[in-house]
Amino acid sequence: MTASVFDHPFLSGLLGDEEIGAQFSAAAELSAMLRFEVALAEAEAAEGVIPVEAAEAIAALPEAFLADLDALKQAIGRDGVVIPDLVRQWRAMLAEQGKHLHFGATSQDAIDTGLMLRLGAVLAILDQRLTSIISSLQGLEQRFGTRALMGRTRMQAAIQITVSGRLSSWKGPIVAHQAALQGMLKAGLPLQFGGAVGTLDKLGGKAPFVRARLSDLLQLSDRPQWHSQRAIITEIGGLFSQVTGVLGKIGQDLALMADNGTALIGGGGASSAMPHKRNPVKAEVLVTLARFNAVQISGLHQSLVHEQERSGAAWTLEWMILPQMAIATGAATRLGTEILQSIEELGTR
Amino acid sequence: MTASVFDHPFLSGLLGDEEIGAQFSAAAELSAMLRFEVALAEAEAAEGVIPVEAAEAIAALPEAFLADLDALKQAIGRDGVVIPDLVRQWRAMLAEQGKHLHFGATSQDAIDTGLMLRLGAVLAILDQRLTSIISSLQGLEQRFGTRALMGRTRMQAAIQITVSGRLSSWKGPIVAHQAALQGMLKAGLPLQFGGAVGTLDKLGGKAPFVRARLSDLLQLSDRPQWHSQRAIITEIGGLFSQVTGVLGKIGQDLALMADNGTALIGGGGASSAMPHKRNPVKAEVLVTLARFNAVQISGLHQSLVHEQERSGAAWTLEWMILPQMAIATGAATRLGTEILQSIEELGTR
Amino acid sequence: MTASVFDHPFLSGLLGDEEIGAQFSAAAELSAMLRFEVALAEAEAAEGVIPVEAAEAIAALPEAFLADLDALKQAIGRDGVVIPDLVRQWRAMLAEQGKHLHFGATSQDAIDTGLMLRLGAVLAILDQRLTSIISSLQGLEQRFGTRALMGRTRMQAAIQITVSGRLSSWKGPIVAHQAALQGMLKAGLPLQFGGAVGTLDKLGGKAPFVRARLSDLLQLSDRPQWHSQRAIITEIGGLFSQVTGVLGKIGQDLALMADNGTALIGGGGASSAMPHKRNPVKAEVLVTLARFNAVQISGLHQSLVHEQERSGAAWTLEWMILPQMAIATGAATRLGTEILQSIEELGTR
Amino acid sequence: MTASVFDHPFLSGLLGDEEIGAQFSAAAELSAMLRFEVALAEAEAAEGVIPVEAAEAIAALPEAFLADLDALKQAIGRDGVVIPDLVRQWRAMLAEQGKHLHFGATSQDAIDTGLMLRLGAVLAILDQRLTSIISSLQGLEQRFGTRALMGRTRMQAAIQITVSGRLSSWKGPIVAHQAALQGMLKAGLPLQFGGAVGTLDKLGGKAPFVRARLSDLLQLSDRPQWHSQRAIITEIGGLFSQVTGVLGKIGQDLALMADNGTALIGGGGASSAMPHKRNPVKAEVLVTLARFNAVQISGLHQSLVHEQERSGAAWTLEWMILPQMAIATGAATRLGTEILQSIEELGTR
Repeated sequence: MTASVFDHPFLSGLLGDEEIGAQFSAAAELSAMLRFEVALAEAEAAEGVIPVEAAEAIAALPEAFLADLDALKQAIGRDGVVIPDLVRQWRAMLAEQGKHLHFGATSQDAIDTGLMLRLGAVLAILDQRLTSIISSLQGLEQRFGTRALMGRTRMQAAIQITVSGRLSSWKGPIVAHQAALQGMLKAGLPLQFGGAVGTLDKLGGKAPFVRARLSDLLQLSDRPQWHSQRAIITEIGGLFSQVTGVLGKIGQDLALMADNGTALIGGGGASSAMPHKRNPVKAEVLVTLARFNAVQISGLHQSLVHEQERSGAAWTLEWMILPQMAIATGAATRLGTEILQSIEELGTR
Repeated sequence: MTASVFDHPFLSGLLGDEEIGAQFSAAAELSAMLRFEVALAEAEAAEGVIPVEAAEAIAALPEAFLADLDALKQAIGRDGVVIPDLVRQWRAMLAEQGKHLHFGATSQDAIDTGLMLRLGAVLAILDQRLTSIISSLQGLEQRFGTRALMGRTRMQAAIQITVSGRLSSWKGPIVAHQAALQGMLKAGLPLQFGGAVGTLDKLGGKAPFVRARLSDLLQLSDRPQWHSQRAIITEIGGLFSQVTGVLGKIGQDLALMADNGTALIGGGGASSAMPHKRNPVKAEVLVTLARFNAVQISGLHQSLVHEQERSGAAWTLEWMILPQMAIATGAATRLGTEILQSIEELGTR
Repeated sequence: MTASVFDHPFLSGLLGDEEIGAQFSAAAELSAMLRFEVALAEAEAAEGVIPVEAAEAIAALPEAFLADLDALKQAIGRDGVVIPDLVRQWRAMLAEQGKHLHFGATSQDAIDTGLMLRLGAVLAILDQRLTSIISSLQGLEQRFGTRALMGRTRMQAAIQITVSGRLSSWKGPIVAHQAALQGMLKAGLPLQFGGAVGTLDKLGGKAPFVRARLSDLLQLSDRPQWHSQRAIITEIGGLFSQVTGVLGKIGQDLALMADNGTALIGGGGASSAMPHKRNPVKAEVLVTLARFNAVQISGLHQSLVHEQERSGAAWTLEWMILPQMAIATGAATRLGTEILQSIEELGTR
Repeated sequence: MTASVFDHPFLSGLLGDEEIGAQFSAAAELSAMLRFEVALAEAEAAEGVIPVEAAEAIAALPEAFLADLDALKQAIGRDGVVIPDLVRQWRAMLAEQGKHLHFGATSQDAIDTGLMLRLGAVLAILDQRLTSIISSLQGLEQRFGTRALMGRTRMQAAIQITVSGRLSSWKGPIVAHQAALQGMLKAGLPLQFGGAVGTLDKLGGKAPFVRARLSDLLQLSDRPQWHSQRAIITEIGGLFSQVTGVLGKIGQDLALMADNGTALIGGGGASSAMPHKRNPVKAEVLVTLARFNAVQISGLHQSLVHEQERSGAAWTLEWMILPQMAIATGAATRLGTEILQSIEELGTR
C-alpha cells in the first residue's frame, strides 16, 4: 500500500529520496531503538545498575534479533507505541537477563532517542547535499556569472542585473542553512532519557551518571529529558522547511527563466499529448516540495501543545509528519543538484 | 521504505486503514487509469473516432498487462507524470492498434479520472463506516442515554446534563457528514476529460458525445474539463477533515471522560514502564488524526492557485496530500467504531 | 493599533474591504448580539415565558444603548466572552425588566447567532460581488474571446487555445461558488440557541416553540444547538477560501500574462526606484489573499476538536480567524472586479 | 473596523497586547521607515553621496512630518507598497533637498528595515516578559515545588512526581527560547539595503561604506540585501510560535489541573448562565494563542517561495501574518505572567 508519494513504487522516482528514506524504514527504526537499549545496558552496567553479563547479552541482540512485525503491528494498535511489545520480543531472546533490558527507561526514551540518531544521519546526508548544491552554484557562477540578466520585480522586468546577482540569492540561504545544520550537528542532537514520568526514578542517584555515559556512547547531547518539551522537533522541521523553501524559490525562478528564455535546462519531461514539449518538471517539483513542507511545519508547531508528562495525541502527530518533511528535503536537495547540473545556459549572451 | 505511518509495517496497525489504503496502492492507481483508457476507447469506437477492433484490443489489456514499475519510476523522474511511459508500455502490448489508445486524451485526464474512480470507492467505504458509527452511538444511547453526566464547559464542571446530550453532539455531525457524502456520491464525482490544453481539440465535433459516453461508462458525472479548476479536491478533502474533526472531538471527550471516571473504555494500551496503566490510546489517536487532516487541508487550498492550463507545482502537491487525508479518515472511522464498541460504561449510574 | 492589514489606515487600501469589514466592527457585533436578545425576548413573550412588558422594554434597547467599551474590555479579559458584562450593562438600562433579558440563553447563543446574522450579510454582499465578476468576465469574453492565446501547461508553451478557453477556467469556479453561496443563503444559516449546557433547560417544554419563533424572527434556520459542533464554521470558511482560491488563480494568470504580453492591464502601481515600471499589483495581491485564506482554513479545522459542551480554547480560535477570512474574500472580490475591469487587451490580435 | 481581535475594542482585552501592538501601529511603521530614511541620508552624506545640507534637512523631518494617511491609502491600492507616495509626501516637505531623500534605496529597503527596527523592540519587550515568567515559575517552585503531584501520561494517572517536575517542563523551554531570543538580539537583526534590484547600483563603489554606516546608525547587522531571501522572517516567526507553544502547554496543563483539583487559580471568569462558575479563561486562551501561531507559521514558510528579485505576492503575505504572530506572542506572555501570578495552590498538600 502506498499512501505517501515517498513510498510509492513509481511516484517516489519523482518525489522520493532513497538515501534519506532509508532512515525511516521499519528496519532503521528498530535498529536505532535497539542501539538505544544496547547503549543503555552498557551505561547501566558500567554504573553497577545491572550486571555486566546482562549488558553483554543485550549487546548480542542486534546480530540475532529479527522482529516479528505482525506482532508489533497488532500490539501498537492497542498500546499506541511499539516499545512494550518490542521489549517483550527482545526479552524473549534474552532469557534470564531479559529483566535488565530497558531498565528504568520508558517507550518514549527509546523512540525519541532512536529518532534523534536517525535525524543525525539525515542531517549529515543533507550537509553533503548542500555542499553539492553550493558547488553546482559556484560552477554556474563561473560559467555564466558575468552575463546580463533582466532583474525582475513584482512579476515585471525592472532593470539589468547580472546572472551573478540572481545566483547570490540562491546561494546565500543555502550557505546559511548549511551553517545552521552543521551547528546543530556540532551541538549534538539531544538524548531522550527520563523514565516513566521523566524522573528516572528507578535509577536513583545514579541517574545523571548513567545518562552521561549513555549520551556519550550514542554521541548525542547530554540533556535533561524533554518528554513534553518538543521545541527541538520544530527546530529541525523548521530547518528542513527553510531548505526546501530556498530550493522552491530556485525552482520557481528556473521555471520562469526557462519560460522566458533566460535559462536552458536539459532533460525536461515528455507529455503524452504534445510530443514537442519538454517540461521543466524538476523546477516545478521543487516548488511543490517547498509548499509541502510549509504546510507540514504547522503540524509540528501544533504539537508543542503537549499536555502533562506525555501526550499521545500530540506526540503521534509528530510521527505522521516529521519523517515526511525529512524525505521531502532529501528529494528537494537531490532534484536541486540534478537541475542545477543540467543547466545548459543562463542569462543573455 | 516507510515515510508515512500509513505504509509502515507496524505503525499502520495504529494509524492505517487497509481497506481504504488499498485504493491508493500502485496497483489500484494503475488499474483505475487503465479503466479510463479502456472506457475511452469504447466511447471513441462507439462514436467512430477509432476502429472497433482497437477498442476490443484495448479492452483486453487489463487482463494481460503487468506494469514495469521500474521503468515507470525512471520515467516519472523525468516526465513528472506517469502516463507518457505507461502509454508507451500499453502501446507496446497493442502492436498496430496501439496508436488508438489514449487518443485525444492527456495525462491529467487519466490521472484525475483514475483518482475520482478510487475516491468514489473510498466514499462508499466511508459511508458504511459512518453507518457503523451511528449504529454504535445509537447502542450507547440505548444503554446509557438516560444516565446523568456533568456538563462541562470551558474545562470546568457546569450543570447536569444526560449522557444523551453528550452523545447528540457526537452523532449530529456524523449524520450530517454522511448526508453530504451520500450527496456527493449521488451527484457523481466528475469525469476529467479535456485533452492536452482542455479543448479536446483532436475530437472535433464528436468531443461532447465521446465525453458523455465516457462518463456514463465510468459512472462519473459528465462535466467540462476541470484541469486547472481544483475546487472539487478541496470539497472532498474538506469533507474528510470534517469527519476526522468530529471523531477528534469524540476522542478528546472520551479521553477526558476516561480520566474523570465518566467513561470506562475496555482494551486500553500497555506501558513499558508502568504495568498498571491502561492508556486510552484510540481516543488520543482520534485527536491526532483530526489535527493531521486539519494541517493537510491547507495544502489542498494552496493548490487552488493553479496557474494557466496545467500547473505541475500545484497539482503534484495534491498527490502528496489527498491520499493521506483519505487514509487518515479511514483510520479514524475504524478507530472510532472500535472505541465506541469497546465502551463499557458512560455517565454516572 | 493595527495588527491586521484589514484595519490598517493605509494597508487596508490595498488589502481591506470596507463593506465587509463593517460587518466585523465592534458596533456591528454588539448590534447583532442585541438583535438576538430583542428577538429572544419577543419569542419568549409570545410563548408566555416572560412578560410582554419585558419584551417591549428590551425592544427599546437598541435605540438607547451605548456600550461602555472599556468595561467590556476589562470584563472580557476576565470572562473570556463579552456577554456577561454586556448583559450587565443592558440590564442596568432595563431596571426591573432586566431580569427577563437573556432568559434561558448563554453567551454562546448570542455570540454565535450574532456571527451568523453578520455572515448572512457578508454572503449577500459576496453574492453581488460574484455577479459583478461574472459580468466582467462575460465582457472580456465578448471583447477578446475569439482571440488566440498560447495554452500553457507546466510553465511552458503548449498548443494554441482561445482566450475563451482561459476565461472559462476563471468563470467556471466563480459560477459554481456563487451557486453554493446562494444555496447556503437559501437554506439559511443556523440559529444558535441552547442555553448553558445545550439543553435549554430553563425553558422546559416551551423550548422548541421559542426556538422556532426566534429563528423565524431572525430569518435563520431552526436547528438544534451546535455549541460544540463547529462544522458550519469550516463550511463557510471553506467557501471563502475557494473564492479567494479561484481569484488567486486569476491573479497568477494575469501576472504571467502581463509579463509575457498576452494581457495589457491598465492602472499598474509605481515603484519608488524605477519610474518606468507599472507593477501588476492587484494581480499579485489576489495570489496573496488566496494563500492567506489557504493558511487560515487550517485553524478553523483544528477548531473542530471542540471538547465537551463548550471549549474556550477552540472557540476563541475561530474568532481570531473567520472574520479575517471574510474580509480577505471581500478584498479579493473587490480587487478581482477592479482588475478585470481594467484589462485593456487579452490574447493575441 | 476591527477584523482582528488584536485591534478590537473589547476582544483585545483578552487577546491583545498594547505594548507590542504599539509597534505595529501605522504611526510606529511610518516612524520606523522615516528613521531609515534619516539614517540613510546621514550615512550617504558622510560618504559624500549627497550634500550634508540634504541630510540635515531630512533629519528635521520626523519632528515636522504628519502623514496624509488617506493619500497613502489611495496610493497603496495602486502601488502595492506605501513608500512611493510616502517619499512623495516627504519630498514635498523638503523642497530642493527632496531629491536626495531615499537616494539609491527602494521601497523594500525602507519597509523591511523599518520592520526589523520594530521587531528589535518587540524582542526586547519579550525578553523582559520571559524574565517575568521565569521569575513567576521560580516563585511557584519555592512555594509548591516539593509537593506531590500525580504524573499524568496519555491522559491517565501514571506515577507520583513532584510539582517541581511539572514546573521544569514549563520553565525549560522558556529559558531556552529566551536564550535564543537574546542571541538574536545580540547578533543583531539584519539591515535591508539593496536598491531597486539588489545591486545598490546607484551608489557605485561607495555602497558597502554607506551600508556599513547605515547599519551602525540603526544598530542593525550589516549584511548583503535579502530582498528575496526571507528565512529571517521564518526564524523570527518560528521563535514566536515556540514561545506561544510552551505557554500553550502551560495553559493546557493548568486547565486540566484546575479541573482535577491540583491547581487553584484565582480570578476566573464569569458565565452569563451559571453564576457559580469560574472559568480558567486565561489558561484556555494560552492554548488558543499557541494554535493560532501554529497555523500562521505555515504562511511565513509558504512565503519563502519568493520569486526573482522581488515578489509582491509572497512579500505581502508576510505583512498579513508576522505582526499578528508578534502580538499573539505578546498576549501570551502577558496572560502567562498573569495566570502564573494568580495561582493560589499547586499539587497536593
